Order: sequence, then structure tokens, then C-alpha cells
Amino acid sequence: MNYPQNFQELIDCFKLLPGVGAKTAERYAFAILNLDEDKIKAFSESILNTKSKITTCPICGCLSDTNKCMICNDESRNSDILCVVENKKNVFIFEKLGVFRTKYHVLGGLISPMDGINPDDLSINKLIERIRKEKIKEIILALRPGVEGNTTSLYITKLLENEDVKVTQIAQGVPIGADMEFLDNLTLELALENRSEVS
Amino acid sequence: MNYPQNFQELIDCFKLLPGVGAKTAERYAFAILNLDEDKIKAFSESILNTKSKITTCPICGCLSDTNKCMICNDESRNSDILCVVENKKNVFIFEKLGVFRTKYHVLGGLISPMDGINPDDLSINKLIERIRKEKIKEIILALRPGVEGNTTSLYITKLLENEDVKVTQIAQGVPIGADMEFLDNLTLELALENRSEVS
Repeated sequence: MNYPQNFQELIDCFKLLPGVGAKTAERYAFAILNLDEDKIKAFSESILNTKSKITTCPICGCLSDTNKCMICNDESRNSDILCVVENKKNVFIFEKLGVFRTKYHVLGGLISPMDGINPDDLSINKLIERIRKEKIKEIILALRPGVEGNTTSLYITKLLENEDVKVTQIAQGVPIGADMEFLDNLTLELALENRSEVS
Repeated sequence: MNYPQNFQELIDCFKLLPGVGAKTAERYAFAILNLDEDKIKAFSESILNTKSKITTCPICGCLSDTNKCMICNDESRNSDILCVVENKKNVFIFEKLGVFRTKYHVLGGLISPMDGINPDDLSINKLIERIRKEKIKEIILALRPGVEGNTTSLYITKLLENEDVKVTQIAQGVPIGADMEFLDNLTLELALENRSEVS
């Protein structure tokens, strides 16, 4: 016998989530059976409404529940610097650090001809417009290291050659607590190349 | 900045699932944003409806979408043997094996005085009734090995001493493919004790 149809449908829904296979989906579906009615209702509504209630900020491209997002609306932030990130999630990763109160610009991906992602698919033109309009003094490229991230960083740097803006990128090297054994050669080479004097 | 409120609510809902922490919940919530409208609607409805549409079979205690479950309704099954399992999920684990077409009895837990679970909290009386009424010839105790499982098995065996039914339990020993190094002493001792002659 297989699971009752309604139950199997719930399992199939959970399988839509990243990294969730059949066994995990079954576990989640059984957990739903054990939740209180009101929690089930809240869960169901949350899934239904999130996408319609959450919009993309027309300025920076981040998640927003108002038209202009809370970060773009925040006048207390340093508005001279833009932190350029790959996707919406990365904004919150940097925000959680809480060390840098800049504004952001979400590219919506990285240049990757192999996957058919060209510069025109990303909000690079919008970034240039913002730099001019908001008189940005520095952009920090905080992109995932690797072929796509470096290509995108280089492309943006090239475009901004003649603009009056400083272009920086986050440091690449050995992460804190890393075991040298498990680091890839590229990271180690880069860490050697970018070595700094111990002060 | 934190996540927009609606989005945070969705993350909190995902945290209700077993083994899902903050990071996984965030990942799932972002995945929901990328789903199509119709999949989101189906997911939401599935969560809302599953509990109300799925009932417990009044005979065996398994998941059911009809009054009497599909297994209890299946006349082609061996009705001389009952496989006694801890919970609803275990029924499907044995069903997936597909080797044994018996009927089941779900206890709804294991005896565990430490957790306040006494024999009266389980459907043990119902099991005795079924054995008498359905003229069961054998019950297979397929309970999780360990203190609770063994206590429950012993308790049921004791209760059935004077009934005309054979009580068996699934073999306990070393699982196939196991690395001896990582097995606990109790399993190894049991495996030695229950050794069988190589034929």
C-alpha cells in the first residue's frame, strides 16, 4: 500500500524544497499531522501569502514589504557606499553581521555564459544609473569568489573605469577556522598571493 | 535590518518542522519565493487540508483517507498474522519492503514510564480484542529495539500468555553493511547471543 493520496500530495510538495528528498519529505509531512490546527492554518497562509505580500524593492532589488525597502528608506545609513551582492539573500547575510551600515544593490545573479546569463540579464545598468544619480563614492563588490563572480566583478570594474567612483572587492583568502587540508588549491594560491605584512 | 515580517513568519513556520533550524528555514522560505503561483497554492492547500482529510483507521490505527483503511479493507492479505508496530509511519516502512502482506496494528507509542507513557496510553487492549475477534494466529512484534521496545514486547507477550496466539518478534542483531567498529556493545552482545548455525 502507498500513502493515502492527500498525504502523498503533501510529501510531493515538500520535495519541491531544496535538498529535500523522499525520506525528509515524509518526515515533514508526518510532523504536519502532529501540529495544532492554528499552526497548520498559519503555515498554510504564510506559504500562500508570502509571495504576493513580498515585493522587490525598485531601487536596490532586495526583498521588501513596502514599495521602497526599509534599507533604501533608512536615512541614517552611509549613502556614499553601495555594497553590490549577487542575490536578495546575501543582503541579509551582510545585514546580520551588523558591522557595515551601507545601502545595497542586488544584481540578481552573476555573469555566466555557460548558463545563458549575460550582463543584460542582471541589474548592472541600473547600478550605473544609481552610481550617477545617488553620487555614490565607493562600490564594494561582495560577490561569490569563482569564475562567475570574478567575471562579473571585472565586467563592472571595466564599465566604471571612467566614472568618478572607487571600486573595491571583499578580500579573498583563507577563512577563519579553516583546516588547511580541506581548502582548494585556488584559495591557497590566492591567499599566498594576497599575503599582507604582519603589523 | 531584519527580514520583512511576512517573510520572517514563513521562516518561523518552517522552523516547526523536525530538524529544521534557522538557516534551513531561510533556505526553504527563499525557495517558496521562487515557486510558481499554482505550486504555492497547491502547497498551501495541502498543508491546510491534510490533517482534516487524513483520519486514523478505527481498526488498525494507521493513516487512512477512508473510514476503514486500505490495508484493513484488503481481503487478499494474510489475515492470520498481525504485525504490531510503534507508529503510523512504521506501517509504510514495512509496506515498502513489499515482502510480507499481513495486516497491522499500530500501538501509538512504546511503554516508557520515564516519559509518562503507560500501557493504557497505547492501543494494547484493542490489540487483545482484535486477536480474539479476528482469530489471529500469530502476532509479529516489530518494535524498535531498546529499553522501551523490549519492555513493550515483554508486556504484550505476558498479556497473551493464555491466549491461543503465537507471539514472535523481529530478529535483533547486526544490520547488513554495518561497520563493526561503529556498532554499540549491546547490539554486538545480542548478535553473539542470537547466533545461528551456518547451514
